[in-house]
Amino acid sequence: MGIPVAATVTFEDGTSRCVDDVAQALALADVARVELLYEYEPDLVPSQPLDQAGMWRYRDLLPLDPGPITYPLPVGGTPLVAPPGLRQASGCDHLWVKDETRGPTGSNKDRATALVLEQALRWGHETVSCASTGNVAVSLAVGAAAAGKRAVIFVPADVEEIKLALMLFAGATVVKVREGYVAAFRLSREAAKAFGWCDRNTGVNPLTIEAKKTVAFEIWEQLGRTVPDAVVAPVGDGPTLCGLAKGFRELIACGVAERMPRLIGVQAEGCQPIKRAWEANASRVEPVQPSTIADGIAVGDPISGALALRDVRQSGGGFVAVSDAELLDAMRVLATAAGVLAEPAGAAAYAGLLRAIECGLLDRRERVVILVTGTLLKTPRFARSGRVPVEVDADLGALERALAGLGTN
Amino acid sequence: MGIPVAATVTFEDGTSRCVDDVAQALALADVARVELLYEYEPDLVPSQPLDQAGMWRYRDLLPLDPGPITYPLPVGGTPLVAPPGLRQASGCDHLWVKDETRGPTGSNKDRATALVLEQALRWGHETVSCASTGNVAVSLAVGAAAAGKRAVIFVPADVEEIKLALMLFAGATVVKVREGYVAAFRLSREAAKAFGWCDRNTGVNPLTIEAKKTVAFEIWEQLGRTVPDAVVAPVGDGPTLCGLAKGFRELIACGVAERMPRLIGVQAEGCQPIKRAWEANASRVEPVQPSTIADGIAVGDPISGALALRDVRQSGGGFVAVSDAELLDAMRVLATAAGVLAEPAGAAAYAGLLRAIECGLLDRRERVVILVTGTLLKTPRFARSGRVPVEVDADLGALERALAGLGTN
Repeated sequence: MGIPVAATVTFEDGTSRCVDDVAQALALADVARVELLYEYEPDLVPSQPLDQAGMWRYRDLLPLDPGPITYPLPVGGTPLVAPPGLRQASGCDHLWVKDETRGPTGSNKDRATALVLEQALRWGHETVSCASTGNVAVSLAVGAAAAGKRAVIFVPADVEEIKLALMLFAGATVVKVREGYVAAFRLSREAAKAFGWCDRNTGVNPLTIEAKKTVAFEIWEQLGRTVPDAVVAPVGDGPTLCGLAKGFRELIACGVAERMPRLIGVQAEGCQPIKRAWEANASRVEPVQPSTIADGIAVGDPISGALALRDVRQSGGGFVAVSDAELLDAMRVLATAAGVLAEPAGAAAYAGLLRAIECGLLDRRERVVILVTGTLLKTPRFARSGRVPVEVDADLGALERALAGLGTN
Repeated sequence: MGIPVAATVTFEDGTSRCVDDVAQALALADVARVELLYEYEPDLVPSQPLDQAGMWRYRDLLPLDPGPITYPLPVGGTPLVAPPGLRQASGCDHLWVKDETRGPTGSNKDRATALVLEQALRWGHETVSCASTGNVAVSLAVGAAAAGKRAVIFVPADVEEIKLALMLFAGATVVKVREGYVAAFRLSREAAKAFGWCDRNTGVNPLTIEAKKTVAFEIWEQLGRTVPDAVVAPVGDGPTLCGLAKGFRELIACGVAERMPRLIGVQAEGCQPIKRAWEANASRVEPVQPSTIADGIAVGDPISGALALRDVRQSGGGFVAVSDAELLDAMRVLATAAGVLAEPAGAAAYAGLLRAIECGLLDRRERVVILVTGTLLKTPRFARSGRVPVEVDADLGALERALAGLGTN
């Protein structure tokens, strides 16, 4: 099984013959098209049904009445990967990446969008709304399009062009609020109440935490129903971290896990209100003015800051802050050593891992999961390597000299 | 089950209480953070293991010796979705979208990259190479990074900036060949032979078809182990279509399917050499000079053109060609009616579906799958809707007037 027993070789003139010696056939791949053949039988095809349920796999722990799921975009079930290159680069032999860049719009926001829209479909809401500058907005615009709902998205006037183009392209009604993000958030809440819209604002709608907790269930299942020692995640508003905490708490409550992982929240140096409160042993989070390239966690006045603080303290974890330079470096290492394309906020977990090891919050020998929350593909301007292509004439000698010049041939 | 039995309500001052009436708790979501609680027990957690195998699920039909898969990026297992909005827009009540934009780099090329790299890992190749202007190049750069291999990628001098940036960002050695794509392809083949590299060129390396056939297995499984009436797919070089054909043929050979679907290949009007050969009932494909926005299928001299012709004829299907305007329109409809973000070549299957119905190759009542092969996120300049946001002061009255002006409130 899994071993080709023959091959069909088709030459450029269209003639074709069957070759029993597969190695001999493969040697012809230069001058002919080689098609491999097997000893076909039904047992070669898997018989267990494919699990395509994604996050709905956990519907017994989601606030859904019975009845079929009708939201059409599969969400969740993202990979947990163990890239050898990243383990080597970090010196962590028990490191995993939970890759949330694989959602329909490339971020972990797609989970919350899915649950809110599934509920909107059930309750008959025609319009869903939120305030956001980035991933939530694109996620809601695309999700609402799939669900046949209208999305009204409130953005500040300085919203990023590519993300704005994507929201509009997916058909959302986009409202630019001249006074900026905080005003956009308030107006979106007022409007949802006044017009009877379904409010998807993160940290306000309890469904967002319910959906985000499913990432904890997946990590636990993907680790063979065990809890890691620690989970490192970026923190802006707070719900991603709170969702993780609730997920692990519920596994304990269900009697299938025995302990929480330590939760390590990562903020940007230019926007670290929750980390500051944690250091000061405070229970309230003092607002700051954000200044970081990581727009996904540039939240100066986090709505769930106090709850994130509580959850992290209860888990025995902590907070770290990383610079923009560390974020860019983490993006580069994730791409080159793990094949994971992350945006700055998405790469924060890897930068935070290194920082947490440095400051003693983590030990390299522990079993650690880092949560990569969003894709680089929506912010391609950060794909800056400083590297350039070599340029040659179509000549093997010229190529050899050029590659030798790189010192990598 | 799935029904919350209580909620914790946490107010802004940090005080918190448990509320038994969930509806009452949810009514407080405006002023407090509401966390839902369930009647926790082990049965709420799924007991079947999660299937995370992706395309390796079909390893008995892949040319792999026994032994564990070590390629670290999960690939395949992409969603088959049935968006109600798209069914309505197309008038096809039995339409599905096979969404290949969910791969690690957002295209169906990730399947071939995975199998070639898994083999390179087993055979000890240190370098993998290919010529490509787009999705294959990004896929190989990222895949090789994950596998700890060196990628050498040959591109024409006019390669698209974002895609070039992504290849370099993932650490690939990129060689710009001054004479253009055809010369780049030849040089890449010569270099692979001269330096002993693993050659991933599509249509040359038999593993690329082997990998791409897994999409047929998934479609059949996701349709409850049945074969659709037709599959519509974009065609550039040919291997995507040939892979589909081989996959369905192998299901028949295994005795688990009884017939082939009709295969409908979609080309761009500005680059339709295979469609022309099909119309002329020819067995050879005459090269053309491509002129289309759909770079993924802008292949003037397709390496597997004759084989794609043969496969489509044997399936009883056919070819259609669509204009750039139809591609842009298909992208818009996929985004707004299905929540699928496709690049021009990726959207060709939907444009081709409409055209195939028009010219009698398909009937609206048939069970049809369209293959969306690549994501919009790598070519965001095509996210052009002609739509603009409304701009308001942060005031509910102003918002209401602005929305009324849109005629959609």
